[in-house]
Amino acid sequence: MNIMKPMEIEMKSFEIISRELAGRIFDRQQEPVIKRVIHTTADFEYADNLCFSKDAMDKAIAAIKKGICIVTDTQMAMAGINKEALKRCGCEVRCFMSDQDVAEKAADQGITRAAVSMRKAAEIKKPLIFAIGNAPTALMELEQLIREERILPALIIGVPVGFVNVVESKELILQLDIPYIVARGRKGGSNVAAAIVNALLYLVSPREN
Amino acid sequence: MNIMKPMEIEMKSFEIISRELAGRIFDRQQEPVIKRVIHTTADFEYADNLCFSKDAMDKAIAAIKKGICIVTDTQMAMAGINKEALKRCGCEVRCFMSDQDVAEKAADQGITRAAVSMRKAAEIKKPLIFAIGNAPTALMELEQLIREERILPALIIGVPVGFVNVVESKELILQLDIPYIVARGRKGGSNVAAAIVNALLYLVSPREN
Repeated sequence: MNIMKPMEIEMKSFEIISRELAGRIFDRQQEPVIKRVIHTTADFEYADNLCFSKDAMDKAIAAIKKGICIVTDTQMAMAGINKEALKRCGCEVRCFMSDQDVAEKAADQGITRAAVSMRKAAEIKKPLIFAIGNAPTALMELEQLIREERILPALIIGVPVGFVNVVESKELILQLDIPYIVARGRKGGSNVAAAIVNALLYLVSPREN
Repeated sequence: MNIMKPMEIEMKSFEIISRELAGRIFDRQQEPVIKRVIHTTADFEYADNLCFSKDAMDKAIAAIKKGICIVTDTQMAMAGINKEALKRCGCEVRCFMSDQDVAEKAADQGITRAAVSMRKAAEIKKPLIFAIGNAPTALMELEQLIREERILPALIIGVPVGFVNVVESKELILQLDIPYIVARGRKGGSNVAAAIVNALLYLVSPREN
């Protein structure tokens, strides 16, 4: 095995992905997002699963250029977002899942911490991107907040993974007239959410080799 | 969609996974690990990919019962490990990837931070479980440290994901006479590494409903 630098390995990986996707034509803007998710999962199903609203890439890139707050539903997704790229773009990331007040409200109201986290995020007075890789209830809460016109996210990344309520929660987002990137079906995860955020950040501020 | 408690959702998810795996017979000890990885990824390929050394489950459970240090190769895997379960088991988790001295040594020696992290972990005077979800070079370094008899891990979880050196690095671990759980092939990830650790912790200390 040759020892290569991380960026060399990444470039070679993307070459292999492109080769194995031979013949597939993607939207030019969506392509780096799709390929980064495949890079993160080694799962080519994402070439078919990922659904982009028509304006998702334009809106997300414009929002990131202005500096946004990214809200995740897991510490794991937050940990997976490239902090240097985030800083270069003048963006920040927040996750409220472990906050004491969130746990208390969830217990009081008999709803999930993920739902309470979304309500807490709705109070932030900055443009928001939601990166949801775990909790269907986060997407369900977001859908309600949007329908009630209490938030208007710059983008929803809707990629929870799992077997219960996951498919349905994603379909709710697909029906909204907002910018979204959704992994249709059961697949997704915090790693996928972080990969999509990183792909967007790298589009706005490419890394050096 | 019914709103259920997280543990109810998890139980229902495992029922669905069991139903869709109908007919598959797994080793009784390995089964909860395999199913938790499928639960984390919604990817049934792990029913075939995951390779366990003959003694992996016994050794891992015995080690966790005595209190061990789990070393990860990403902050993301560390973030995904259940901290309450870790505490109940008297275990701890460490990740050296962001340490200043690791970055400096990697630059000086022209090797990856992941490799330096493994050498740093080898200095820990406690039984170790390595949970490697990202870096093939971490596995390659571990293999060398083991062959040089500088470490004897209680378990190596070898589940990097990707297209370059990943398959080969896992095959190196499969050739060692040590306890391992390896996801053969390209697939894996920090989420898979964390899921395997959590499955082991829950076997030693089950959660309450």
